Amino acid sequence: MTTDYRFLKACRNEPVDTTPVWLMRQAGRYLPEYRAVREKVDFLGLCKSPELCTEVSIQPVDIVGVDAAILFSDILVPVEPMGMKLDFTPAPVFQNPVRTQADVDALRVIDPQADVPFVMETVRMLRRELEGRVPLIGFSGAPFTLVSYMVEGGGSRNFARLKSMMWGAPALYRELMEKVSETVIRYVKAQTAAGVQAVQIFDTWAGMLSPADYLNYVLPYTMRVIQAVKAPGVPVINFVGNSQGIMPLVAQAGGDVIGVDWRIDIAEARRQVGMDKAVQGNLDPVALLAPPAETDRRVRDIINAAGDTGHVFNLGHGVIPQTPVDHVRAMVESVHEHGSSHRVGP
Amino acid sequence: MTTDYRFLKACRNEPVDTTPVWLMRQAGRYLPEYRAVREKVDFLGLCKSPELCTEVSIQPVDIVGVDAAILFSDILVPVEPMGMKLDFTPAPVFQNPVRTQADVDALRVIDPQADVPFVMETVRMLRRELEGRVPLIGFSGAPFTLVSYMVEGGGSRNFARLKSMMWGAPALYRELMEKVSETVIRYVKAQTAAGVQAVQIFDTWAGMLSPADYLNYVLPYTMRVIQAVKAPGVPVINFVGNSQGIMPLVAQAGGDVIGVDWRIDIAEARRQVGMDKAVQGNLDPVALLAPPAETDRRVRDIINAAGDTGHVFNLGHGVIPQTPVDHVRAMVESVHEHGSSHRVGP
Repeated sequence: MTTDYRFLKACRNEPVDTTPVWLMRQAGRYLPEYRAVREKVDFLGLCKSPELCTEVSIQPVDIVGVDAAILFSDILVPVEPMGMKLDFTPAPVFQNPVRTQADVDALRVIDPQADVPFVMETVRMLRRELEGRVPLIGFSGAPFTLVSYMVEGGGSRNFARLKSMMWGAPALYRELMEKVSETVIRYVKAQTAAGVQAVQIFDTWAGMLSPADYLNYVLPYTMRVIQAVKAPGVPVINFVGNSQGIMPLVAQAGGDVIGVDWRIDIAEARRQVGMDKAVQGNLDPVALLAPPAETDRRVRDIINAAGDTGHVFNLGHGVIPQTPVDHVRAMVESVHEHGSSHRVGP
Repeated sequence: MTTDYRFLKACRNEPVDTTPVWLMRQAGRYLPEYRAVREKVDFLGLCKSPELCTEVSIQPVDIVGVDAAILFSDILVPVEPMGMKLDFTPAPVFQNPVRTQADVDALRVIDPQADVPFVMETVRMLRRELEGRVPLIGFSGAPFTLVSYMVEGGGSRNFARLKSMMWGAPALYRELMEKVSETVIRYVKAQTAAGVQAVQIFDTWAGMLSPADYLNYVLPYTMRVIQAVKAPGVPVINFVGNSQGIMPLVAQAGGDVIGVDWRIDIAEARRQVGMDKAVQGNLDPVALLAPPAETDRRVRDIINAAGDTGHVFNLGHGVIPQTPVDHVRAMVESVHEHGSSHRVGP
């Protein structure tokens, strides 16, 4: 098994031939090939089909040339068998949001092999298909982001219900976070056992908390997950959306690689995170709509700011659906070009 | 005319008897008295009635005891007479978004006395009503936030059209920003001439840009506005939403007082802004839904972190509609209590 993929080396803060790049939502609606698959199956149906998940996970490797594949799934997949009734409309909606002690009591911690076997089957299929090409990233939502959806019943503007539970019924909130954390730990361990070569923990919503709230209500759970899923040679990427005000706390929560939002300078983020950790980011996703020459300048500036080792290029958030595929391909080439020339020093 | 209001002293970084407090959207839907006014008139009709604007601006002074009134209006009011067709549905929508050179050419810089006389009439009425009680804050949207609405045609998820213009047609973007900046300058100067005692510049959306983009595409215009509207004894508050990754740049753009989002520690924000400036913030608006004892602890922590002088207490964003009025009143009392005891040293 290859372990010297440039993506894995960058995660370990080791020298690389050029900067590796992958993109959050790289398997998604901007690709006509993905949309063609979606015409045949609804979103949850896709998530539960190892063959189709394998197909769409590999698409961006073939089409735009990224340096890693990420397991195709949805962060809410392991939450459904906890007892949540999940729909996509297309936004995710839970018909039975968690609000009371009885709601929390009714939730069960999942057994990934029995409850979401299709995920591990996808991992095994992907490893066979990808071996010798690029490594495979597994992922899970972080406990806080999963709990956000479970309490709000879907997306939210200001997360009033979740924060009201956090501050008004903290014991209930903590009980819920513990159950979800245990589910996340089992889910990630099952992916690792099935063969993922790195793991990203997505905490999409934790950046809407004040630093004090992140410290009290999120950090202990993320930290516990990251410590529990640690496996030799499998780096963990800790991504928190809109985290520019809490970078040192995100780093403290753990992870070999810290995701960086585009709304902070990546050199400043790295200073706050500590140079012992790698960073991942941080192009504005909308910059992929700009003329490629403009995007190229931005790629260069990020690579120059990020430092010589320990940088995985990515967006600061997911690819947006209207992104032209040829812009993505050009951007991947820009990363490889600037990442390589950057390393040819005097 | 009184100039020793505690709000104005805090803006000038001078010692105060206790921490002054006002709230963004303090005149708004959480108040039954505001909703009663809105039952009689639509939103734009309210904005254009000096009598009703005066009434709703004073409501929070009477009902929750804040230390300043802010002119009731909408940030898009001065944009309408530039030639924009504005509706509230209830979210603001422009029927004729600005996309082309012809669209920009068609816009006119406003003459506030002729185009929005009701705003200055409101200012004069408010000054008469408020004299000896609390000072009056005027405001304007910052050029970037106004241009965001004008180009997108309303609110937006990722501001793809605006960023596409910024990066793909920068000369057109800059021409538009210049026209809007000139409108903002005239609009704020007219408010100051009519008697406002402080001014807040709202840059609600600039926090969705990377630091480099803020520096290139926003800062020069905000800076020009703040320098142009400077008037003796009238402090300027520069508020940028979600600004936790660009605090030093926001401070560089100008303003005597820098607004602080709740997603950054206020002591850290103040360090980044510089101790010569005052800061305003930074309670999470949703914290007003928490039990008052919990909110009280948060108020205390913010006041202790913010420093002895130069702190105006506020939320990090506007009051949300479902906020209980008695929670707001209790929070104002908490600020005055902790702000006062904080200053009784040994």
